[in-house]
Amino acid sequence: MADYLTLDYYLECVGDIETALAHFCSEQSTAQWKRVDYDEDFRPKYAAKVISLTIEGELPELSYPVRHFETGPIHACRVTIAHPHRNFGPKLPNLISAVCGEGAFFTPGVPVVKLLDIGFPEPYLNEFDGPKFGIDGIRDLLKAYNRPIFFGVVKPNIGLSPEHFAEIAGQSWLGGLDIAKDDEMLADVQWSTLEERSRVLGHARLRAERETGEPKVYLANITDEVDRLIEQHDIAVRNGANALLVNALPVGLSAVRMLAKHTTVPLIGHFPFIAAFSRMEKFGVHSKVMTKLQRLAGLDSIIMPGFGSRMMTPEEEVRENIEECLQDFGHIKRSLPVPGGSDSALTLESVYRKVGSIDFGFVPGRGIFGHPMGPKAGAASIRQAWEAIEKGVSLETYAERHEELKAMIEGAGEKK
Amino acid sequence: MADYLTLDYYLECVGDIETALAHFCSEQSTAQWKRVDYDEDFRPKYAAKVISLTIEGELPELSYPVRHFETGPIHACRVTIAHPHRNFGPKLPNLISAVCGEGAFFTPGVPVVKLLDIGFPEPYLNEFDGPKFGIDGIRDLLKAYNRPIFFGVVKPNIGLSPEHFAEIAGQSWLGGLDIAKDDEMLADVQWSTLEERSRVLGHARLRAERETGEPKVYLANITDEVDRLIEQHDIAVRNGANALLVNALPVGLSAVRMLAKHTTVPLIGHFPFIAAFSRMEKFGVHSKVMTKLQRLAGLDSIIMPGFGSRMMTPEEEVRENIEECLQDFGHIKRSLPVPGGSDSALTLESVYRKVGSIDFGFVPGRGIFGHPMGPKAGAASIRQAWEAIEKGVSLETYAERHEELKAMIEGAGEKK
Repeated sequence: MADYLTLDYYLECVGDIETALAHFCSEQSTAQWKRVDYDEDFRPKYAAKVISLTIEGELPELSYPVRHFETGPIHACRVTIAHPHRNFGPKLPNLISAVCGEGAFFTPGVPVVKLLDIGFPEPYLNEFDGPKFGIDGIRDLLKAYNRPIFFGVVKPNIGLSPEHFAEIAGQSWLGGLDIAKDDEMLADVQWSTLEERSRVLGHARLRAERETGEPKVYLANITDEVDRLIEQHDIAVRNGANALLVNALPVGLSAVRMLAKHTTVPLIGHFPFIAAFSRMEKFGVHSKVMTKLQRLAGLDSIIMPGFGSRMMTPEEEVRENIEECLQDFGHIKRSLPVPGGSDSALTLESVYRKVGSIDFGFVPGRGIFGHPMGPKAGAASIRQAWEAIEKGVSLETYAERHEELKAMIEGAGEKK
Repeated sequence: MADYLTLDYYLECVGDIETALAHFCSEQSTAQWKRVDYDEDFRPKYAAKVISLTIEGELPELSYPVRHFETGPIHACRVTIAHPHRNFGPKLPNLISAVCGEGAFFTPGVPVVKLLDIGFPEPYLNEFDGPKFGIDGIRDLLKAYNRPIFFGVVKPNIGLSPEHFAEIAGQSWLGGLDIAKDDEMLADVQWSTLEERSRVLGHARLRAERETGEPKVYLANITDEVDRLIEQHDIAVRNGANALLVNALPVGLSAVRMLAKHTTVPLIGHFPFIAAFSRMEKFGVHSKVMTKLQRLAGLDSIIMPGFGSRMMTPEEEVRENIEECLQDFGHIKRSLPVPGGSDSALTLESVYRKVGSIDFGFVPGRGIFGHPMGPKAGAASIRQAWEAIEKGVSLETYAERHEELKAMIEGAGEKK
């Protein structure tokens, strides 16, 4: 099995199941497996094969209307395919083409497909470096152990000049934030160039470190055309950014891998575009496949849709994505999972309980920068919420002597 | 409007429509539009705005089950949003993050979203080079005018040694093929390195050109990690590949743009991964958005899921994708559309009639390389089918004096 990836799919097969699955394997590997008039067969060495099949049941119709030409009974199936990785090698674009390309999505008799998971054998994993820093590296950088890592998305995310941006990021650091970050939408734009923003933010970070005596991180968003990523890394790091954000799918996982080889600071991924192919329960590609590939590509931390109905993601799926960051994965370091979405001091305990460990990042935006007393108080309210959890005291009790936390609780009360 | 992209979405809104759409605009642009305690408003300059709304009707339930927390009536809406491009600039990853990122897919009250189209103003388009060659460049390279361009995917796609691969590609050129191509799954692998394959195919191409007196193209698949793409281009072109294939979404559109700047030969894109986010009628991103972005990124030709129920794509959608390649698009050259999928001499007329012009590529695989008389005959059968169309003669009549075409027709008859 060292020569094979294992691919788990949910499939809806129309007509004879065995025929559909034979096509499904053949279309993603050796479609025409011999030359005309030659006595040969490429299948033993190059064909994908079904190694496990569970027929979940017969369906009255496809779960989603998809045009197809086969007729016959429809069956929901879970299938595991062994696909020889010699067909494409340890390269992300070629891997993606094989497992969710034309073969997988255009097989006669299989109009509904969801790629659920990929299993990698050790020799294949060994071709990847994975994260350079991982969770331990991020903790060492911040000297922050025994607790979650506190991020904040500087807001307003669009429109602030670099100077004003630095001013409020600075306040949030003073209030207790570890990492002040650019929004995933804010990158190198004319009205706030990365060159200028990273320079003033770099200075602001050093000031905050002097004032607090604690290491701080400015997380600069270098998402850009791929032929500018290395240069953007160099500019931002030279100017004082000490971690970098990249929108993983928009730049492409392979560009992330390139950047991960080059980077001298932790590399953190954000999730634009992933919902477009992962939200349907039974079609597309499961988000945990993308989390796994982002970790493989070398992201030290992965921001993902988090808990709460606001993020429209089933709780089980969020847990699976967190698990993908933390579980054993050959020699590949653990990535810090950052389940995000409309968080504040009021949601910290719930997120912590659901994650089930301190190895996560917590990333409010408006919950810090929209705090009625300002960003410093917003950041302080998050740290106070964590102190309450550590002490085993209720938020309400702890808020009696902590006005920043109290203001958040009262603000939420007023909204209701 | 020169400062705005126009974004067409299909949305299913839960509860008050106006509230949902206000959120939809705000989440993809200025979510928190002022600092606490400042008298400011970033919205006039940076906010996305609804410029057109059609309420298609009320739905009994969402078209797809998506977890959400709002309650109230559900309305299907078509909406056009004007989004200021100063928020991200003329960069594909940042554009993608804005129009199909967290903002678009995680708006409270809008659990079902499909991005249908993007309109670009002239000043934005002018920041892109588009295809270097386009349809006219490909025609000039082949000296092939007044007819479709005949591609063939060399099969068996996986497992052939470079020598055997060159042998059958050579036969297909002699039979009348313009472009012999690597399958999208075959790139630089240990058992057929790009270095060796492009070398022997380059020689085979020159031999075929001498024998036929016609220009021929070997289309080498250089899909690889993005930091190897430029090198792969250089190897393949130096060795005699005179067009290059790249799997656009797997490498990323930005990597395509990088490659398009560098390339000295036509660059042709293939469609792995696109089905995963475009097949659902009412969710995800429409395939024509990706065709448009591929053209913008600089692909001289775009291979796409074509006609026929085998490709599970509504005919109207195939037509729209072809139109995206051919229609006026500022100064951006036209891309050659290649609607593909299980084609042969028997489907050429139908594809031609549906495209409605000669400006397309036709790309059989098994229809040429699985021809009962071999690849040379397979390619000849395609040219014979085109001759029949040009002469206005039925395939059956033309086949009476053309045995390669006859064999295809008889083979199809036997299968039935």
